[in-house]
Amino acid sequence: MGEERFLGYKGEVLQELRKAGAEIGDRVRIAKDDQVFEGILIPRSEYADDKHVVIKMRSGYNIGVQVTRDTKIEKTGEGTKPSFRPPPLPEQKEDLPKVAILSTGGTIASRVDYRTGGVRPALTASDLYSVVPELADVAAIDTEIVLSIFSENITTQNWTEIAKNVAKHIENGKAGVVIPHGTDTLGYSAAALSFALQNLPVPVVLVGSQRSADRPSSDAATNLLAAVKAAAIAPFAGVFVAMHETVSDRAIVFHRGTKVRKCHTSRRDTFKSINTLPVAKLEGEQFSMFLEDYEKRDVKRKLLLKPNFDEKVALLKFHPSTNPKVIEWYVENGFRGIVLEGTGLGHVGKSLFPAIREAVASNVVVAMTSQCIWGRLGMTVYDAGRDLLAIGVIPLEDMLAETALVKLMWVLGQTKKVDEAKQLLKTNIAHEFSPRTAYEEGD
Amino acid sequence: MGEERFLGYKGEVLQELRKAGAEIGDRVRIAKDDQVFEGILIPRSEYADDKHVVIKMRSGYNIGVQVTRDTKIEKTGEGTKPSFRPPPLPEQKEDLPKVAILSTGGTIASRVDYRTGGVRPALTASDLYSVVPELADVAAIDTEIVLSIFSENITTQNWTEIAKNVAKHIENGKAGVVIPHGTDTLGYSAAALSFALQNLPVPVVLVGSQRSADRPSSDAATNLLAAVKAAAIAPFAGVFVAMHETVSDRAIVFHRGTKVRKCHTSRRDTFKSINTLPVAKLEGEQFSMFLEDYEKRDVKRKLLLKPNFDEKVALLKFHPSTNPKVIEWYVENGFRGIVLEGTGLGHVGKSLFPAIREAVASNVVVAMTSQCIWGRLGMTVYDAGRDLLAIGVIPLEDMLAETALVKLMWVLGQTKKVDEAKQLLKTNIAHEFSPRTAYEEGD
Repeated sequence: MGEERFLGYKGEVLQELRKAGAEIGDRVRIAKDDQVFEGILIPRSEYADDKHVVIKMRSGYNIGVQVTRDTKIEKTGEGTKPSFRPPPLPEQKEDLPKVAILSTGGTIASRVDYRTGGVRPALTASDLYSVVPELADVAAIDTEIVLSIFSENITTQNWTEIAKNVAKHIENGKAGVVIPHGTDTLGYSAAALSFALQNLPVPVVLVGSQRSADRPSSDAATNLLAAVKAAAIAPFAGVFVAMHETVSDRAIVFHRGTKVRKCHTSRRDTFKSINTLPVAKLEGEQFSMFLEDYEKRDVKRKLLLKPNFDEKVALLKFHPSTNPKVIEWYVENGFRGIVLEGTGLGHVGKSLFPAIREAVASNVVVAMTSQCIWGRLGMTVYDAGRDLLAIGVIPLEDMLAETALVKLMWVLGQTKKVDEAKQLLKTNIAHEFSPRTAYEEGD
Repeated sequence: MGEERFLGYKGEVLQELRKAGAEIGDRVRIAKDDQVFEGILIPRSEYADDKHVVIKMRSGYNIGVQVTRDTKIEKTGEGTKPSFRPPPLPEQKEDLPKVAILSTGGTIASRVDYRTGGVRPALTASDLYSVVPELADVAAIDTEIVLSIFSENITTQNWTEIAKNVAKHIENGKAGVVIPHGTDTLGYSAAALSFALQNLPVPVVLVGSQRSADRPSSDAATNLLAAVKAAAIAPFAGVFVAMHETVSDRAIVFHRGTKVRKCHTSRRDTFKSINTLPVAKLEGEQFSMFLEDYEKRDVKRKLLLKPNFDEKVALLKFHPSTNPKVIEWYVENGFRGIVLEGTGLGHVGKSLFPAIREAVASNVVVAMTSQCIWGRLGMTVYDAGRDLLAIGVIPLEDMLAETALVKLMWVLGQTKKVDEAKQLLKTNIAHEFSPRTAYEEGD
């Protein structure tokens, strides 16, 4: 076919590109009406229309230009083909801690010659050293590409795969593991690994970036360097998310994998610890701890790998006039768990009670969280809460709805017995419940 | 039946209460093991079990005590029956602005002789003056009980009812309207009224409280007084939510009805303006404006009442391994709109694309918001976003998912034509879209 050179283009637009002799990766100039656009021709996906040409502009942003009768496409430069000249590997210092970097995809992993808009994982050790040469002073790095997908496509099966890979590297004696990951579902994956990798002897640090490394304002290098430092030498063990504390590059914070949420579409400090503080922060070479109840790094501790998840769990955000029939649908279609995102202290409208009662009677585990995000449930304060408890809904205290979903998927991957599952769901496994007094702001 | 006296109690527990001669509203003493509980016997709902007695303790909190063989229930005092002795009506000052208070229920409305745990709206003018005597200096108050429900039970039909009532009072020349409302779904109702009541000449202020007025830390009186002041004399017109600015009583802020969200299960400053500032705040008698682009009070402006909503709209929060079949179910069951809460800049996994494409082809309006809550969509940055746009998903910029749901319910209540609906959805009607530059915090 050779269509790789025009990936995703079809119909008249494809004809126009052929006429211009412009292939993916080439520099093109598009003139239309009074406007001129210049940039690198990037591929389109199978769902794209056949009316637009998409180019990556110098700003790093992509733009789609609709091709009409009076649009002129001109090739202005040969594409630097997606090859990549890494610098020579830095001299390996002796006795540096060994860190594995397991790439999964996303903005942070899609750089280096991210010229074409396609996802090209660039995470061999030499790629990394070329982007962040300081890494060579911090750790001896072993890289592996586990996945190469944008994080909105991550599934429970991918969590299993990542968890097994992390376990393999830890059993091989790594001082820590870093997982570059798209930020979109990074919080979900961090929760998943928190449950799948128990009793960790060392840190497992998920890290993302909000700007690809080819943009001047990128946070990729800063975040990655901090994540590797933590994996190499931080005093804590467990699953963490490393991202900017503020919009400045000054400090990187380490959030607990079960207590963190993406809270802004574009800011670099998008991840926030909810109902607790981050565990620690790193400024320069200095780690400081915000919390005292953390697990200490201890290579003698023996990792417990529990990598299974059941994807038959629904997340239902309640709202006025929620149709109760959707709950019936989940039950009829073999879902084993439902996490409700209720209102306030943990409520849903009473029109849903019969369907929830049926779900519980059908051995579906139904749990409650709050769409408020911050704060703790209080299901004994009002009738609605007490009724839901009486029906058998499990109150998940101050747990994030996203973490609750992941935990219930994990719980149902561990046991077929409903009572055991409910017990496990209520057990604090990876700090997903905060102690009641610690950071409460009730009044 | 006479069972009102034991409302919700059944089985053995009912027998025990009968034996003790204790009815709803009576003071009881329950001894069990080594513990003693004292409080007012409160009713239970139809879904309650038959094992617990529930009492309201002096702290204002309710507690359920499981009745076992060795539990002793004793009546220690006659219930002050739910009658209520209001003070004489304050002398009505001349020429005060006329304000309507339309009660819907919730914590703020369920006070005064809220002894029994049942919801007893107490919002005659004289009730109100007895709780917040300062009201008599601010406005001539006309009260009406529109609904008496906890706000998690509010439906689209209730929004219609409230909107029509507000319109009636405004047409009767009120200086403003105050709507006490449960906080759980107050944000949704505020958005609904923002679309249903267009071109408002005066302020319509929704107000809630996080603590019932019989508790020392209650925010009910402060919030209500501020809401009435705003309705009476504030310089702005439109739909607003009046709640605490911080946990202190010092200032009450007025959030735009379309830009506000309940963000904490229990704090008094739970409501936050998202992607914008509150419009104004009130400290003492002083209103100060945070925003400049507000509609001014103008009694000559003519209200447009558009009170219809279509409840066949779904809110789907995307997460890893979301089952695409639920989208098919919504389409097959006659839903006319789906609001996606996607990840990041506006993405969902590509496994959902075929179902979304089918939905769009079936004339279902599919719109995108972000579960990040803060920030703006950017659906041209990555392939997934561009693909979803190509499929026909409508990007809702920086609109809250909850507001998007309500708006789509409203839009589909205005027109049967899909193209018209899409156009209306994209039109900025009640400040639900913030201008791009105003309060952006992109980097």
